[in-house]
Formats: sequence, structure tokens, C-alpha cells
Amino acid sequence: MRELYRANLARLGRDLLEIARLVHGAVLDARTALETADVHEAERVITEDARIDRLQEALDDQAARLLALQAPVATDLRTVLASLRMSASLERMGDLARHLAQLTRLRYPELVIPADMRVLFAEMADAAVKVAHEVVLLLETQDLAHADRIHELNEVVNEHHVAVFRAIAAPTWTATPSTTTDVTLASRYLERFTDHGLSVAAKVRYLVTGEQTRRGPEVGSV
Amino acid sequence: MRELYRANLARLGRDLLEIARLVHGAVLDARTALETADVHEAERVITEDARIDRLQEALDDQAARLLALQAPVATDLRTVLASLRMSASLERMGDLARHLAQLTRLRYPELVIPADMRVLFAEMADAAVKVAHEVVLLLETQDLAHADRIHELNEVVNEHHVAVFRAIAAPTWTATPSTTTDVTLASRYLERFTDHGLSVAAKVRYLVTGEQTRRGPEVGSV
Repeated sequence: MRELYRANLARLGRDLLEIARLVHGAVLDARTALETADVHEAERVITEDARIDRLQEALDDQAARLLALQAPVATDLRTVLASLRMSASLERMGDLARHLAQLTRLRYPELVIPADMRVLFAEMADAAVKVAHEVVLLLETQDLAHADRIHELNEVVNEHHVAVFRAIAAPTWTATPSTTTDVTLASRYLERFTDHGLSVAAKVRYLVTGEQTRRGPEVGSV
Repeated sequence: MRELYRANLARLGRDLLEIARLVHGAVLDARTALETADVHEAERVITEDARIDRLQEALDDQAARLLALQAPVATDLRTVLASLRMSASLERMGDLARHLAQLTRLRYPELVIPADMRVLFAEMADAAVKVAHEVVLLLETQDLAHADRIHELNEVVNEHHVAVFRAIAAPTWTATPSTTTDVTLASRYLERFTDHGLSVAAKVRYLVTGEQTRRGPEVGSV
């Protein structure tokens, strides 16, 4: 019984890691699609997101069964509850990668991001991809250096998000209204993506140190 | 012991309802602030959101204690887990009301929404306020007629959200780029707000009927 219990807990961790890997793949592909107007890559991200959703549901069911049959307490209970929260964050990160891909598909064969904003967005997307990768490493190793790294990357994305709004408000902004909307949404998606990564990092930090870190208000929302 | 257990479960339901009432108040005030450029009302929504966050944390702790000490199974376990999910949705709804208020504060003394979009946004905000109210009634009564109503209201908001993008893309659109960004974000916040209301409705439906309703992809994201 005890052995089965340990095996089930370990499986929960493995499944969470698998979802994180899929999210990393999704944001990698969504970035490529965004930067090259690759509609096939975009379609793939959109289709594959259903897999992330299914895995999240399966993980939730598994966590519920574990709670029902084995009634974990203390650290184990905290782990199961944190897994539920983390799976929700990861599922949401998958959605946001899908939203980026949907923008790409909508504007195909045009690029979503206008020429003079591409460097800014390349840096932002790069940070988002790195956050997803650091989330994978963090779940694999529980090494909080990865949580620190996620924190730093999130700051980078927040600064870029603010820079996007500044660029839109500048007199030099000449893009069409629809492009302004696309740029606003793409920036918001990336900001939300890394913010969810930060939530995962906060949960792992809590599990490792036992200390709850209070999240400040989002920087992204004016 | 059994009596305490029942009392704790009931308390979880009451606390969830209290959070829902605060969210309803928040979106009501955020709407007023948005429509009248009332910066004091906006400040209040922003300040009060911290209370929603604290109550959500308290509810989560309480749910964790209940799981640890009383190891509920079957329906009760589903109720506790659904409460955790619903509290997360409600907390997020509070954040979105706060984002609307932050937009209002940012543009004060100007109105965020340009004149020719105000009817559309009034209808959208009205639907969002109604969703919050229906969520309160649904949690109070478990009457699924309220869940159906939330579903309908969510459709209304989704249609309006699409209409906003259409208006922005139309040749008649003359607003500044920053206003375009504000309108995009305000619409997105309202769409997300009601979508989270729909998530709460889906959870209550599941608890009442035992049937999991699969959520389709968001309409809002192109």
C-alpha cells in the first residue's frame, strides 16, 4: 500500500513534468510560427493544445483519486494540492501559446508583428521560451536557481510589455488599428505566459522551503 | 467529529459565496468607474482586490486543513476540490475587475472608451455584472438555471468582443493607437471575466449532476 502510494505520488510529478515539456514545445513552435508566419506550425500548436488539456484533466483525476484513496497529509498533501495548481497554470500557458498561434493563423500570410517591433518581440518570445524551459528544469530538479531565473525572465518580459505600450503611444507609431490590437494582445499573451511560469515557480519554492511567497500585483496591467 | 466536519464543509461554501459577493461588488464598481471616469471608485476596486486575494488564500488553507484532518471522499472530496478551482476563478475575476479599474485610473480624467464604442461596452459590462450576480445566486441556490443564464451571458460578451475587433478593423475607426490598445484590453478583460464565470458555472454543474462538461476553446481569442 505504502509502495503504491509512493509510486502514485511520483507519477503525479512525472505527469506534471510531461505537461511542462509539452508547454515548452508549444511556446517554441508558437514563437517560430509568429516570427516566420508559418501557418502549419501555428496549426500544430493549436491542435496539440488539446493534448495538454487532456493531460491536465487526467492529472487532476489522478490527484483526486490519490486524495480519496490514500488521504495524504503534511508535505504529501501540500505536494498534491500544489500539483493541481501547477497543472492549472501549465494548462493556461498552453492556451496562451495557442492564442499566439491563432493570431499568426489569422494574419497569415502577413507577419503579426510590424517590422520595427520585431526585435522587442523576439526578445520577449525568447524570454517566454526560456521561462518554459526553466519550468521544466525546476520540476525536474527542484533546484530553486531555476525559480530565480524564472523571476528574472519575468521581469524582462514585464519591462518589454511596458515598452510595447510606450511604442504604441509614441508619435512615431504608424501601424494600422488592427495591428495595434494584435501587438497589444501578443504582448499581453507573452506577459501572461511568463506570469503563469512565475506562479509555478512560487509553488515549487513553497514546497521546497515551506515558505509562502506572496505574489505582488501584475506589472503587466497598467 | 462528524458534526465539525459538516460545519467545516458548510463554512467552505459560505466563504466561497462571500468571495463571489465581493467579486460582484468589484465589477459593479469597476463598471461605474469605467463609465464615469470615477477615479475614487477605481481606487476602491484596486484596494479592495487585496481583500479578495486574502480571502481566497484563507479558503485554500481551510480546504487544505479539511483534506488533511478529515480526509473527505466521494461527493465531499469533489466539493472541496471544486471549491479550490472556483476560488481560483473568482480570484481571477477580481483581478480582471481591478485591471479595468487600473485602466480607468490611467486615463483619468478622460474616459477610457471612445464615444462611439460606449453602447457596446455598456452592454458588455452589464453582461459581466450580471454574470457575477448569477454566480452569487448559483452558489447560493445550486439552481442550474443560473448556470444556463451565465452561459447565455457569456455568449453575449463573446459576440461583443468580436464586434469590438470588427469596429477597430473598420475604415471608420479614428481613435488614437493608445485608445485602440485600451479598448482591446478592456474588451479582453470583460471577455476573460465572464469566461471565468463560466468555469465556476461548469464546476457547480458538475457537482450537481456529476457530469463533466468539456469546455470548448475560448471564442475570445481570434
